[in-house]
Amino acid sequence: MDAAIPKASFLFDLDGTLVDSVYQHVLAWREALDVEGINVSVWRIHRKIGMSGGLFTDMLLRETGFHIDPERRQRLRNLHAAAFNRQSASIRPLPGARELIGYLTHAGIPWAIATSGRMETARPVLEMLDVDFDRTPIVTRDQVKHAKPDPDLFVAAAARLGIRVETATVVGDSVWDMLAAQRARALGVGLLSGGYSQDELERAGAYRVYEDPADLLKHIDEVGVRR
Amino acid sequence: MDAAIPKASFLFDLDGTLVDSVYQHVLAWREALDVEGINVSVWRIHRKIGMSGGLFTDMLLRETGFHIDPERRQRLRNLHAAAFNRQSASIRPLPGARELIGYLTHAGIPWAIATSGRMETARPVLEMLDVDFDRTPIVTRDQVKHAKPDPDLFVAAAARLGIRVETATVVGDSVWDMLAAQRARALGVGLLSGGYSQDELERAGAYRVYEDPADLLKHIDEVGVRR
Repeated sequence: MDAAIPKASFLFDLDGTLVDSVYQHVLAWREALDVEGINVSVWRIHRKIGMSGGLFTDMLLRETGFHIDPERRQRLRNLHAAAFNRQSASIRPLPGARELIGYLTHAGIPWAIATSGRMETARPVLEMLDVDFDRTPIVTRDQVKHAKPDPDLFVAAAARLGIRVETATVVGDSVWDMLAAQRARALGVGLLSGGYSQDELERAGAYRVYEDPADLLKHIDEVGVRR
Repeated sequence: MDAAIPKASFLFDLDGTLVDSVYQHVLAWREALDVEGINVSVWRIHRKIGMSGGLFTDMLLRETGFHIDPERRQRLRNLHAAAFNRQSASIRPLPGARELIGYLTHAGIPWAIATSGRMETARPVLEMLDVDFDRTPIVTRDQVKHAKPDPDLFVAAAARLGIRVETATVVGDSVWDMLAAQRARALGVGLLSGGYSQDELERAGAYRVYEDPADLLKHIDEVGVRR
């Protein structure tokens, strides 16, 4: 019956999980909203980072009583991308990120990246991680109908790896990753490196929480990888 | 025995509690550390914001294995203040902050501000809040030996109000405020507006947690104020 026991595989979120970019995204959204005259407290933006950009702006606009229209949404998206890319040179991989994906590749363990971001903001960050675009399945928001907390990104990433998503481990820093993992019936592993607390991640379904990729790599035996 | 029942009074933290400035402080420290060649993940900086700047840099340097010397600490302090003040024009009061302190003033309820920051970074922020410098006791890091999580700032602020600190309610957004409140035997009320989670604030001693000053004002009856 060995065939029924799933092998380890990993689906990684990008921002806050492999690269240290959440806080820059937060202030880039703050700047974009500011230009549009929309006053939202910064912590509320932080707590929505990682979900679909469209859902994010719709939620913020609804909560603040502003009208949602496609033109405004597009302007916000462009303003955010411009503000983020202005500071993307200062962004670095999280500790252990390169080592973790290098370890999995070397061990022959399938892994992929699934991000709510679009390729326009993800590309410079992926290049910094030395991700091999030819060998690594990368699913961005451009390729699915709904981003997180919908399960589409993780389902698509699992399909690209040729595995069943129910057998995968999703690694992410936000509650949206953990909720999307639950909706895909995958296991969720949370990282503190995006600024959520352990409690928030566990309440959203994380079955284990680590500090950052380095800490996950140190405890990789706990999440189904045999060295 | 009415004389023994304490009257309500409030000691407020500033950054993240009355003004929406935590994330800008976080990235200003990130920039300062970067200039000094010290690579620290941004979420680790976030989780230390609100404590004494000296303690903060000592902890970070120790954790990252860098040598702590007074010159480096002074350079970091100057670099942080410069980076923060460059963006201080974009900083706004948190929702309900002006209304909350206006309400307390109007109701004759004593209140003061106690911040781990120095006057050089606090002044522009206090001016934006329309704080009356002649009527409001303001205790900054310049005036006490130890900043948070030591209780000195809150003890000094209570003394300036002529009240016993054990009868005061401390309002803050960080676990350092809540720990300092406990060490002063004051009650701690946490706000989510600095980006900590409810669970983190409660574990540090908050006996009640609200979203921001507007939410606290809406529930002011819960914390000992009779309208």
